[in-house]
Amino acid sequence: MTRRHHLRTLATMLAGMATLTPGTAARAEDGYRLWMRYDAPAGAQIDVRGGSPTLAVAAAELRHGLTGDAGPVVIAAATDAAVAALRLPTAELGPEGYLVRRVTLAGRPVVLVTGNTDVGVLYGAFALLRHLGTGGTAADVALRSAPKIKLRVLNHWDNLDGVVERGYAGQSLWDWWTLPDFKDPRYADYARANASLGINGTVLNNVNAKAESLTAPYVAKAAALADVFRPYGIRVYLSARFSAPIELGGLKTADPRDPDVAAWWKAKADEIYRTIPDFGGFLVKANSEGQPGPRDYGATHAEGANMLAAAVAPHGGIVMWRAFVYADTDPDDRAKQAYTEFKPLDGTFADNVLVQVKNGAIDFQPREPFHPLFGAMPKTPLMMEFQITKEYLGFATHLAYLGPLFEETLAADTRVRGKGSTVAKVVEGALEGHTLTGIAGVANIGRDRDWSGSSFNQANWYAFGRLAWDPALSAEAIAREWAQQTFGTDPRVVEPAVGMMMASREAVVDYTGPLGLAHLMGTGHHYGPAPWVSDLKRPEWNPVYYHRADRQGIGFDRTKTGSNGVAQYAPAVATLFADPKTTPERDLLWFHHLSWDWKTQSGRSLWEELVHRYDRGVATVADMRRQWDGLKPLVDAERWQKTATYLAVQEREARWWRDASLAYWMSVNGRALPAGVAAPAHDLEWYKAQRFPYPPGNPQ
Amino acid sequence: MTRRHHLRTLATMLAGMATLTPGTAARAEDGYRLWMRYDAPAGAQIDVRGGSPTLAVAAAELRHGLTGDAGPVVIAAATDAAVAALRLPTAELGPEGYLVRRVTLAGRPVVLVTGNTDVGVLYGAFALLRHLGTGGTAADVALRSAPKIKLRVLNHWDNLDGVVERGYAGQSLWDWWTLPDFKDPRYADYARANASLGINGTVLNNVNAKAESLTAPYVAKAAALADVFRPYGIRVYLSARFSAPIELGGLKTADPRDPDVAAWWKAKADEIYRTIPDFGGFLVKANSEGQPGPRDYGATHAEGANMLAAAVAPHGGIVMWRAFVYADTDPDDRAKQAYTEFKPLDGTFADNVLVQVKNGAIDFQPREPFHPLFGAMPKTPLMMEFQITKEYLGFATHLAYLGPLFEETLAADTRVRGKGSTVAKVVEGALEGHTLTGIAGVANIGRDRDWSGSSFNQANWYAFGRLAWDPALSAEAIAREWAQQTFGTDPRVVEPAVGMMMASREAVVDYTGPLGLAHLMGTGHHYGPAPWVSDLKRPEWNPVYYHRADRQGIGFDRTKTGSNGVAQYAPAVATLFADPKTTPERDLLWFHHLSWDWKTQSGRSLWEELVHRYDRGVATVADMRRQWDGLKPLVDAERWQKTATYLAVQEREARWWRDASLAYWMSVNGRALPAGVAAPAHDLEWYKAQRFPYPPGNPQ
Repeated sequence: MTRRHHLRTLATMLAGMATLTPGTAARAEDGYRLWMRYDAPAGAQIDVRGGSPTLAVAAAELRHGLTGDAGPVVIAAATDAAVAALRLPTAELGPEGYLVRRVTLAGRPVVLVTGNTDVGVLYGAFALLRHLGTGGTAADVALRSAPKIKLRVLNHWDNLDGVVERGYAGQSLWDWWTLPDFKDPRYADYARANASLGINGTVLNNVNAKAESLTAPYVAKAAALADVFRPYGIRVYLSARFSAPIELGGLKTADPRDPDVAAWWKAKADEIYRTIPDFGGFLVKANSEGQPGPRDYGATHAEGANMLAAAVAPHGGIVMWRAFVYADTDPDDRAKQAYTEFKPLDGTFADNVLVQVKNGAIDFQPREPFHPLFGAMPKTPLMMEFQITKEYLGFATHLAYLGPLFEETLAADTRVRGKGSTVAKVVEGALEGHTLTGIAGVANIGRDRDWSGSSFNQANWYAFGRLAWDPALSAEAIAREWAQQTFGTDPRVVEPAVGMMMASREAVVDYTGPLGLAHLMGTGHHYGPAPWVSDLKRPEWNPVYYHRADRQGIGFDRTKTGSNGVAQYAPAVATLFADPKTTPERDLLWFHHLSWDWKTQSGRSLWEELVHRYDRGVATVADMRRQWDGLKPLVDAERWQKTATYLAVQEREARWWRDASLAYWMSVNGRALPAGVAAPAHDLEWYKAQRFPYPPGNPQ
Repeated sequence: MTRRHHLRTLATMLAGMATLTPGTAARAEDGYRLWMRYDAPAGAQIDVRGGSPTLAVAAAELRHGLTGDAGPVVIAAATDAAVAALRLPTAELGPEGYLVRRVTLAGRPVVLVTGNTDVGVLYGAFALLRHLGTGGTAADVALRSAPKIKLRVLNHWDNLDGVVERGYAGQSLWDWWTLPDFKDPRYADYARANASLGINGTVLNNVNAKAESLTAPYVAKAAALADVFRPYGIRVYLSARFSAPIELGGLKTADPRDPDVAAWWKAKADEIYRTIPDFGGFLVKANSEGQPGPRDYGATHAEGANMLAAAVAPHGGIVMWRAFVYADTDPDDRAKQAYTEFKPLDGTFADNVLVQVKNGAIDFQPREPFHPLFGAMPKTPLMMEFQITKEYLGFATHLAYLGPLFEETLAADTRVRGKGSTVAKVVEGALEGHTLTGIAGVANIGRDRDWSGSSFNQANWYAFGRLAWDPALSAEAIAREWAQQTFGTDPRVVEPAVGMMMASREAVVDYTGPLGLAHLMGTGHHYGPAPWVSDLKRPEWNPVYYHRADRQGIGFDRTKTGSNGVAQYAPAVATLFADPKTTPERDLLWFHHLSWDWKTQSGRSLWEELVHRYDRGVATVADMRRQWDGLKPLVDAERWQKTATYLAVQEREARWWRDASLAYWMSVNGRALPAGVAAPAHDLEWYKAQRFPYPPGNPQ
């Protein structure tokens, strides 16, 4: 054999063993850099006018991201004398907005990055980098924006033992054991990523909270994180366990009306603020899924929230009180219970309390109609809670871009003050004139190298942050700017990627629960299909509670003949939802129990339409796979391969969802599949027998 | 203010905020690259003679690590015609040895990397890279080595839910949920690191095993890992739960004498080998700390092991059967029980069984005398089990280089066949002529970016691998070559680093349990001092069981007047250990209960010597910190900072150990501290009151 022959053999062999080839240990494209992949050579001229840590990190970002071609850049607060002399329209930027434009400063043309505060300047620096990363140039830059929502907050459902509830991207980012001593450099990169989007708060621990997180050692650990985050404009919050006065304080009660309880919380708040002067406040899950709360003592949610609010008020803190409640003692429609419990409390909450409401009335399903509380509590700031982590949308492995889900909810019209009373306006406070406003996203961030478990999952973090800043942005525009920064601006990559993203969430709806079906997933872990489950202790834990399928029909009747949940919406909306003919078809079975023969808009029967949509969902995923395969030459190998692998998983699991669901529906309705439709690969018993030990995100 | 002034202000500020400075996202020195930090530009001339995946990865490593300066390099098995024609002394290299030297091939001077197998060649390639990374040149290269132990295996105590028992470096590397679909590129880097040391096996799951790891889905997952590891010469093994025939097979018993049980295991082995043709075999923890085993049925450990061995024997598999047993029904000295149970079984184990014995008779304490089983079972291959993860040596945060611990055990002389009957010779099989030989290390590897929780922890993985290849290597030489490859060859860094390393393990012994004391740590999590604990259910779980301190004296009498554990050693050793005057002082209180006034070799009383050693341990850590501080200008910022932070933790915790221990001993012996010795910072009750929620490595 000649040497040349040997080399040919080797080359052939190497080509066939992608996973075996030892790459460089320092992988440039392992996803760590998120959408901030700038790595410019030195040469940018950055003139920083001011000496705060925040301006310093803004300058460092620009040095890292700008080349000398951008020309001189000046970053300075609008209060800087030279900037003030320019008389720029900065008043309406508020405390966090930014303005980036070309100006002449001291006779020199420069790009000015400014804002009324240093954090505003930082946001401007990131906006400039985004502008450049999405095809813009320094020559054409003219950016101005201010956030429409005051508190833009991530909720980490991170347990103190490092397990992230509903987390699919590895352990908690917070290494509580080595804090406060060791500040992992990653903490600063987390803050950078958030600041690049305008996220300005983070709740460090799970809403299913442990009292220990309020002890002095853990407050010191949280303070170390707050120190890292502070220059990036990010405040730290903690989830508070309502019974902590008993567990930590040795009190006999946690009744919010008990003076000793109030005093304990006041002292605790004072202690926290001594350690973290800019502590944001508390997030509370009370009387929900086993968590303690004021109802344990016959007190109201408002009494509980207000007692905590009084403890943090002297320090400028706030309380985010979750409305996610449903009681095992209440036989009423689960979707109605939060409204029933909270609406009467409107007007009774303290000024520094926000009530945090999930986007829908059940629990982060692939699709839910907007929560009836939006618009129903005009005297109370309602904080939106989205879930960025995909508890019900395929965990980390399924590509499901949530921009359209967030957009759909924010754009939904509550009609409470006529047309245009969108959920976004409720959340922005614009509808009722609230200035304390907020939006929360349950984080999809963990210690995985790529932060969120996959490249495309990063887009959900990104989309949440961008929509939190401006709920009017379009999901598609956000997808495009994310893809440009993440994969480069080549439209041969960007446009297919955007197409995949925009189709992806509807695909998940189609293959898991089309036409308004919901809560059909496996018990506990929430993985895979289990519409047949009917034996769990509480009725509303069972999928059959939600779909109510029988030989005649399917769907949850929330009209007058059923739970009358529609009556919780404003009359204009309730009227639409009360009639299946005027109900958006996407929500049809959420509100109505209909015959399998009901004629849908396509002309197909309900049964045929259901089958059609399951098949459409699977086909969309197959199409996403094909599109991604076509991008192989244009995307770096490591990120391409992981996404390709996950798309293969998703296609397999989409078929599984479709097949298992159809097998079950057929067992209930006794109908055959329409002609030409593929039968499920297995019989129903096979699907029922599947078991999934050790699923991620499901702490025991 | 001038612009220059602004910049000066900024520079000053930035200098003071190391943890706040946003670094580049792609950090060159975050520890990921371990000791394999070569990143040569293209230019090496590598001629690969042969087409196997193993030769391909060897070539890839050399391309990555060699510059063109090295001249042409030929990699080829010794069976290659051109290489064979050179008549090199390759016979004694065995199947895994290598030879690297300059030769003339086809009239051309080249560096030849060869071995009798492709894996031998791969080891040669790594040896060449090590040679170059430790100051050698291609011009002077002449390397030849063969491993002295056949099975060089990591034991991962990794649970299927991702928690690593006694792991302090993050989650399990194995993402079981996304396997077998997704093969994280990190798996290949893990294999590279192991192959660079000659580690040729890995047990994927915890010895406290779940039966699920033997189900088809998990075997498929293990197979995916085996596929990645195979080119690197690494075989996959699984820990087997002895009761799996009941849990998975639905049998009524797991009695190894039951034909149905044997048939179940045979079928299971056949199934595994169909999926993983080169599967290594089983590791078993039986009748130990609650694990099921043959003793549950009155059968012996040999009957249990042999039944499993018969199942894997047709496929060339082996069984590693752990000797780590102690029974709650046996009131005898825990240190004696493994010997008592296993020695009578010598000669009854099947040919493909190794008995895996921990280095000491208790449990991976900072220091233990060598296990009395070494040398006591001449007819049985005894496999060494070291612990690389620092369960009892400060978790991830303490710098404790274990090379000296491993070396001390391997060099210990059992005297069973006269002087020179070292533990190393037992393990190598040289003493009794065994060809099936093995050594295991309980891995300290997790998903942390730096793999092992800190830079210096990587050295323990490294040292284990190097000593597994050649137990005669010196711990100091290994430390030096590790430091050179990890931090660069500058002696201003290497020599202080080696000095710190070589002092570090003795420091841990000093500040946690000097003079042969052991098992004084906190309950369950094994963190921090708790010599006072006396209320645990089983006597041998309590620290007081081990130190037996009272007003008169301290120590465990293992002579004739006590448990007579010394009699388990060969007479020449037993005689030494039977007399406190001839017992090495480092093991004094392991074997003897002595008066606080006993005169030690220093002339100090036992009490004074104890105090002296605690203080010496703390002082050594303080000195290590000073040395590391001096390296700040010479080590990259990220790795320097983390180690500096951890050394500060270590110094604080060394003082804590010392103070808490002394406070307790004083409460027992009623003595004052010697003049000039600092009193503990707190009273004993304070130390007893410390609590450590959510410790790592301690699954509930």
